[in-house]
Amino acid sequence: MTGQTVIRGGLVITASDEVHADVLIEDGRVAALAVPGTQDWSEDRTIDATGKYVIPGGVDAHTHMELPFGGTFASDTFETGTRAAAWGGTTTIVDFAVQSVGHSLREGLDAWHAKAEGNCAIDYGFHMIVSDVNQDTLKEMDLLVEEGVTSFKQFMAYPGVFYSDDGQILRAMQRSAENGGLIMMHAENGIAIDVLVEQALARGERDPRYHGEVRKALLEAEATHRAIRLAQVAGAPLYVVHVSAMEAVAELARARDEGLNVFGETCPQYLFLSTDNLAEPDFEGAKYVCSTPLRPREHQAQLWKGLRTNDLQVVSTDHCPFCFVGQKELGRGDFSKIPNGLPGVENRMDLLHQAVVDGHISRRRWIEIACATPARMFGMYPKKGTIAPGSDADIVIYDPQAEQVMSAETHHMNVDYSAYEGKRTTGRVETVLSRGEVVISEREYTGRAGHGVYTPRSTCQYLN
Amino acid sequence: MTGQTVIRGGLVITASDEVHADVLIEDGRVAALAVPGTQDWSEDRTIDATGKYVIPGGVDAHTHMELPFGGTFASDTFETGTRAAAWGGTTTIVDFAVQSVGHSLREGLDAWHAKAEGNCAIDYGFHMIVSDVNQDTLKEMDLLVEEGVTSFKQFMAYPGVFYSDDGQILRAMQRSAENGGLIMMHAENGIAIDVLVEQALARGERDPRYHGEVRKALLEAEATHRAIRLAQVAGAPLYVVHVSAMEAVAELARARDEGLNVFGETCPQYLFLSTDNLAEPDFEGAKYVCSTPLRPREHQAQLWKGLRTNDLQVVSTDHCPFCFVGQKELGRGDFSKIPNGLPGVENRMDLLHQAVVDGHISRRRWIEIACATPARMFGMYPKKGTIAPGSDADIVIYDPQAEQVMSAETHHMNVDYSAYEGKRTTGRVETVLSRGEVVISEREYTGRAGHGVYTPRSTCQYLN
Amino acid sequence: MTGQTVIRGGLVITASDEVHADVLIEDGRVAALAVPGTQDWSEDRTIDATGKYVIPGGVDAHTHMELPFGGTFASDTFETGTRAAAWGGTTTIVDFAVQSVGHSLREGLDAWHAKAEGNCAIDYGFHMIVSDVNQDTLKEMDLLVEEGVTSFKQFMAYPGVFYSDDGQILRAMQRSAENGGLIMMHAENGIAIDVLVEQALARGERDPRYHGEVRKALLEAEATHRAIRLAQVAGAPLYVVHVSAMEAVAELARARDEGLNVFGETCPQYLFLSTDNLAEPDFEGAKYVCSTPLRPREHQAQLWKGLRTNDLQVVSTDHCPFCFVGQKELGRGDFSKIPNGLPGVENRMDLLHQAVVDGHISRRRWIEIACATPARMFGMYPKKGTIAPGSDADIVIYDPQAEQVMSAETHHMNVDYSAYEGKRTTGRVETVLSRGEVVISEREYTGRAGHGVYTPRSTCQYLN
Amino acid sequence: MTGQTVIRGGLVITASDEVHADVLIEDGRVAALAVPGTQDWSEDRTIDATGKYVIPGGVDAHTHMELPFGGTFASDTFETGTRAAAWGGTTTIVDFAVQSVGHSLREGLDAWHAKAEGNCAIDYGFHMIVSDVNQDTLKEMDLLVEEGVTSFKQFMAYPGVFYSDDGQILRAMQRSAENGGLIMMHAENGIAIDVLVEQALARGERDPRYHGEVRKALLEAEATHRAIRLAQVAGAPLYVVHVSAMEAVAELARARDEGLNVFGETCPQYLFLSTDNLAEPDFEGAKYVCSTPLRPREHQAQLWKGLRTNDLQVVSTDHCPFCFVGQKELGRGDFSKIPNGLPGVENRMDLLHQAVVDGHISRRRWIEIACATPARMFGMYPKKGTIAPGSDADIVIYDPQAEQVMSAETHHMNVDYSAYEGKRTTGRVETVLSRGEVVISEREYTGRAGHGVYTPRSTCQYLN
Repeated sequence: MTGQTVIRGGLVITASDEVHADVLIEDGRVAALAVPGTQDWSEDRTIDATGKYVIPGGVDAHTHMELPFGGTFASDTFETGTRAAAWGGTTTIVDFAVQSVGHSLREGLDAWHAKAEGNCAIDYGFHMIVSDVNQDTLKEMDLLVEEGVTSFKQFMAYPGVFYSDDGQILRAMQRSAENGGLIMMHAENGIAIDVLVEQALARGERDPRYHGEVRKALLEAEATHRAIRLAQVAGAPLYVVHVSAMEAVAELARARDEGLNVFGETCPQYLFLSTDNLAEPDFEGAKYVCSTPLRPREHQAQLWKGLRTNDLQVVSTDHCPFCFVGQKELGRGDFSKIPNGLPGVENRMDLLHQAVVDGHISRRRWIEIACATPARMFGMYPKKGTIAPGSDADIVIYDPQAEQVMSAETHHMNVDYSAYEGKRTTGRVETVLSRGEVVISEREYTGRAGHGVYTPRSTCQYLN
Repeated sequence: MTGQTVIRGGLVITASDEVHADVLIEDGRVAALAVPGTQDWSEDRTIDATGKYVIPGGVDAHTHMELPFGGTFASDTFETGTRAAAWGGTTTIVDFAVQSVGHSLREGLDAWHAKAEGNCAIDYGFHMIVSDVNQDTLKEMDLLVEEGVTSFKQFMAYPGVFYSDDGQILRAMQRSAENGGLIMMHAENGIAIDVLVEQALARGERDPRYHGEVRKALLEAEATHRAIRLAQVAGAPLYVVHVSAMEAVAELARARDEGLNVFGETCPQYLFLSTDNLAEPDFEGAKYVCSTPLRPREHQAQLWKGLRTNDLQVVSTDHCPFCFVGQKELGRGDFSKIPNGLPGVENRMDLLHQAVVDGHISRRRWIEIACATPARMFGMYPKKGTIAPGSDADIVIYDPQAEQVMSAETHHMNVDYSAYEGKRTTGRVETVLSRGEVVISEREYTGRAGHGVYTPRSTCQYLN
Repeated sequence: MTGQTVIRGGLVITASDEVHADVLIEDGRVAALAVPGTQDWSEDRTIDATGKYVIPGGVDAHTHMELPFGGTFASDTFETGTRAAAWGGTTTIVDFAVQSVGHSLREGLDAWHAKAEGNCAIDYGFHMIVSDVNQDTLKEMDLLVEEGVTSFKQFMAYPGVFYSDDGQILRAMQRSAENGGLIMMHAENGIAIDVLVEQALARGERDPRYHGEVRKALLEAEATHRAIRLAQVAGAPLYVVHVSAMEAVAELARARDEGLNVFGETCPQYLFLSTDNLAEPDFEGAKYVCSTPLRPREHQAQLWKGLRTNDLQVVSTDHCPFCFVGQKELGRGDFSKIPNGLPGVENRMDLLHQAVVDGHISRRRWIEIACATPARMFGMYPKKGTIAPGSDADIVIYDPQAEQVMSAETHHMNVDYSAYEGKRTTGRVETVLSRGEVVISEREYTGRAGHGVYTPRSTCQYLN
Repeated sequence: MTGQTVIRGGLVITASDEVHADVLIEDGRVAALAVPGTQDWSEDRTIDATGKYVIPGGVDAHTHMELPFGGTFASDTFETGTRAAAWGGTTTIVDFAVQSVGHSLREGLDAWHAKAEGNCAIDYGFHMIVSDVNQDTLKEMDLLVEEGVTSFKQFMAYPGVFYSDDGQILRAMQRSAENGGLIMMHAENGIAIDVLVEQALARGERDPRYHGEVRKALLEAEATHRAIRLAQVAGAPLYVVHVSAMEAVAELARARDEGLNVFGETCPQYLFLSTDNLAEPDFEGAKYVCSTPLRPREHQAQLWKGLRTNDLQVVSTDHCPFCFVGQKELGRGDFSKIPNGLPGVENRMDLLHQAVVDGHISRRRWIEIACATPARMFGMYPKKGTIAPGSDADIVIYDPQAEQVMSAETHHMNVDYSAYEGKRTTGRVETVLSRGEVVISEREYTGRAGHGVYTPRSTCQYLN
């Protein structure tokens, strides 16, 4: 890694530029970009990117490796999950450390550090899930911001587990308004949803598709609106995670039209899947159970529109895989017991490139929503998310012509199914560098657990 | 009362018509209207209304006689309060019976019947405050609808007292969607407000004006929006009480543009008073402490606009008087301990006529928002709220030219101050009939406690 | 007509009330309403309305009898058209006198008076079409307002014929802001539409359905918005005629939310017919050619919503019949030559009652949009549009249970087709009184040409 | 120019990145960017940018050098105007060639080429003003797009001069939808405005401030909305020039929320000046007469918000200077005769940097709205508007700490007043390179007329 690497002849695409340039890498960072052939570089290693895209490594700002949920654990460890991420062209993840009720943030964060350290193929950072807002927690938030954990997730759903009431949310937002932290919100009215769950089960509605019916789009939109107003009262910015309902997008658009610092994230599953999948027979629908839930197909167009109008800014995966056998099956006969989550960390960059091919977004917007904006949103720019002098050499050589078929047979995530089984896409990750080290080399894994390091983050760079 | 009365020569104004007509009253009801002088009636009593308006008696759909609140009681009994109402041209009130947590609706309703029976100068009905939604309560709601208590109030504020969480609200709305009841909502995010109250007190902000600052307009608008979406999920109509914030009006307007059955009530205090009053020195601001609170002056124009565009449909008083001496004073040094409420039942018709004089509303709209719509909204039309053959002869002879000055010196409410002390208005109640009986005769009280009777109601007549 | 008539036992429905009452008629006016059986009336004529509705006669504020258009004339004369109106329960029409370019308003108005006088079965008034705004015209507008022609129609379509440019519109609106007149607007961007017409014909698109395709909904909405803003600049109210596009309804709703005095009218054809009709084969689509054009079916729901939310206030017919044979046929091979217009004056009250049966509107709203509001909008209330002491005795006995089938075989309009051929409806006009005279008696015509008289109007009664 | 230049030690700011980098320039282009000190470059010329910003040269997409208007000519020639642009850090202008009614586009374009060729200090391109839409003009549009004139301006104002009616606009938009051109719109309802002008003059309102009163914000918003809907009908994108009214911003925001390809430009004068300036006494207000006009101060906040929410994308100058003496004075006693236009090409980059200092926008957004987006919008990216390998070396060394005072005493535009006389700003252009040639060297002009060359453009790069 001490030598020089040059990526030659590719089209370098960032959030704002598309230029043909050679990229010189030294000491794990981008040292220079130059018009092809103009510089007299004598590198140790040359990567030929002729006919290929040279893009920043993906930044997946929403993963849940090894998450404990409903009596089981997400099936990807930090080792398997980050390796799969690398295969999919993602070179940074931000995972969620969890505070349990009655425990400190510190305990949760330490536990997550222990899970990740020495095991990751790519770099990682942490958000903190705040399940128990109290005076101690509020003070700890300040400390975490100082040490690079600058974003805090709260839940308006899951009463008794992660749920915060509006007073707790307001207090955390007020604190973040002072310490620069960013509140990330799971916006669903869980109190009302739990009533509908109980009623559905009482009516004998027990299949996976009822998961989508009880978690109503209106209740996502309501919670989104409520979070926005609470943030407005607190004078704090807000980042809404995994937006799936068009009515929620409308609330974000309204708030942004008002000039508020409100941001929205959606995920590939909401852009490419729908309640049709949840309704697949023989309990197959369980594979698609996640919260917020998949929505009817007509919501997709509004999500794409939101990404084009910048009412949605980020596409993350909410990667949280549970095997169909043994895990999803816990909810046979009771949809409310199906572990919530989908695999996706390996698929995101390809699915979004397919959206470029399909005309939903431009190439630059692809890089913006998948690399640059998540890096900026969570304080890692320009170290991550772009290719510029001084940036980490987290770089993907992407073949825009190659075709592939997604499948559990061939994917590298530790889960026994693919949410996109059989889907054909155009475009494929060829080679991936993480801080200058080649971790995927022409579709061969050359990385190692422990290469990836913890990445402390500054506060949100969208707020100035 | 068995004889005939004729009101001659006045301008009869209803929600839709303004015609010169004589009105024949028999057996407590309107028997006929006729072109003046055309009919050969030989009445027992003639009331000369030449140069006066002949209008339906006011229907005040929101009063709290003898309400227990914060360790004291609203200072008007049903006897004093209904007498004052008559003086002010109001001939029907709908008061709120209260369910206490842990008790049944029936217990609360029985208690309120006991307070009112035999004591009222004018007719009265009851809404039911639901403080404890559970399976028993839900069943009782059906019974109450059948016996004429067809509207149920819930609170998104006052945790620990009247507060219902979103699940309880959803359940009650679902029930009302089935039994025809109408949910009335106190829409303020009390959970968030209580955080702000605590913080304000901790900062030493203890004067009455802080009551207005912590109960933020955005938190009224948020709750209004939330109630609307919960009602939409339940498939139920919604009536939002005492709307004071322009942002809340905007939420109602948006919902109505979507075609939802959402209704809004405001009160004279929000139309004529403001945070300037709350800021009056020497604790005088306490006189104006009510919830939702008074807002800055610029909200008034939006409330008037809402009344014109029919995004607000009803003006009630939320009459809930507490004497300054001994009651409001409970909150000296801690605004959160000031009993919430204002006197107003006697002032409403006059203040709204002043709005006609000032050009805010038309004469017909005056009658609509103060008489006809509340009667229809709460299932009493055309018995109450209009002057038509068969209607109860609840009629006011109103002198549109007379001038008066509002004052505690001269009013008839049992409270030691007037919220409108010194206000000059044009227009005055001259004579009032309740079911044909003259209870105010040329500004002399001729009624009696016990004349007024309980009025069971049908379900909301705006829903077809 | 000098004697007394009493209508006994019916349900009297007005815009605000539904009461069982007997109605006494003297000297052509309503003398009294009374609780059934309470009055000792010894009438000359009794009409038994038991089980029937007793409603105000319809007010159709938009008709074009004998209108010259495209080289031919609307096929109903004032004699045939007003007789058909009576058959359909309409007792007042407001027709459009036409100013020709280069001529005075007076000339046009005189011509229309000559056409109508002595020929009408029911009462009538006039609006004035202003085709040539200039200093003389503006002065004439003041005079016409004084003599009871208080509304003026302008066209944003039909360049070279009726078209006014934005400057002419602004000047007329400014004048109406001063003299109290009401500008009625045909809101379509005719300049842009004529480009699309030319292009369509050049492409060989010549069938009737292309009439609907070139007159785009967006160009109706654009013109609606433009008219609203011009009215706002002029400080004038605005009444938009024959709104058919949901996008135009949205513009009206937006303006009304802003508190502007903007009103909208739609017509039965937009509520019950669609582009499916325009696409009927064998040139049958020509029967449905009118402007604004019929829209795709999904617009209907938005029009009904607009009527419920009061963003649309009036339903008129825009009655302007042309026979299929010999008139509509002028446009075979060139849709732009098809005379624009539909018959409907006889069908309106029944179609709107069907809307009551179908649950689109309430009974009171039926009367409001068809009788009371047009009367108020155009300065004829309470003489027309209600049943109250002193009102003209323009009354319809309506059988809500009777069934009928609309057909050119049975209708009374002078046109060889029905736009609603074969449509079954519930409800039927039984008996019609015009100023106390029975003109339809149990479905027999007992009226006469010349009974109907010119009705001068005051200015718009919605502006206070 | 054949040698190498290196800019060392500065902070390179582009629309998306802020990195410390050295910039190598060869053959007029950026050859490489590198981490400072890492490359072994032996340049001919070194520019020390330590402590400075290194930014792309400004792209001013809206200038009118030598424009004939109202019997006079804009006072800057291409020579004086482009030199002043260079002084102000702008290295590319796009000026407007004018078609006169009755003449071809070609004639107009040739005339403008003749004015500019050999005279410019910096590079330039042309938009084409289309004053006479007809079949020949439409065909010429295709040719112009092919040769690099890819944008066409139309006027909804100035009847008889530049004005196009809605049919002509629709036709041009339809053509641009096919040939890739972009319609730029002067959106004011000139037909209505001219009525107001005539009326104001007739009332004796003749001072400059009446210019602002007659050109009403509502009439800008109306025309903006109309242009949007016409573009929607044509299926074409739209770029609205010099947006000044908050109501017009609202129309753009609405259209963009709908997902339409609609873009908006504002100008420094609308962000920093107001009707207060138009009201300056002694005819001084004439200095600020331009169209669209300056607006009341409260519009500024909405324009800034629009720039932040990306409802406005570009800040250009609409540079069109007329001397106060002899030119502006043509309108003494008749505001309608004051030549419309302000100087500004030299002030834009500094004023927008001041907006960074004031907290209105971020540094990256400064570069985006002033350099990158105009370059992309008009097909010059990444040749212009960024600093990337292969880009033209149009680069500004900007001192963010230096202070200056704007004044006609010191500016370089050929006009006898400054619209910002006396305004203090922080930040100053130090050195400017145009295609690698230093044209301003530490605040000394080292350029020459004729260095700047015509720059043909591709079609809008925002449409994919």
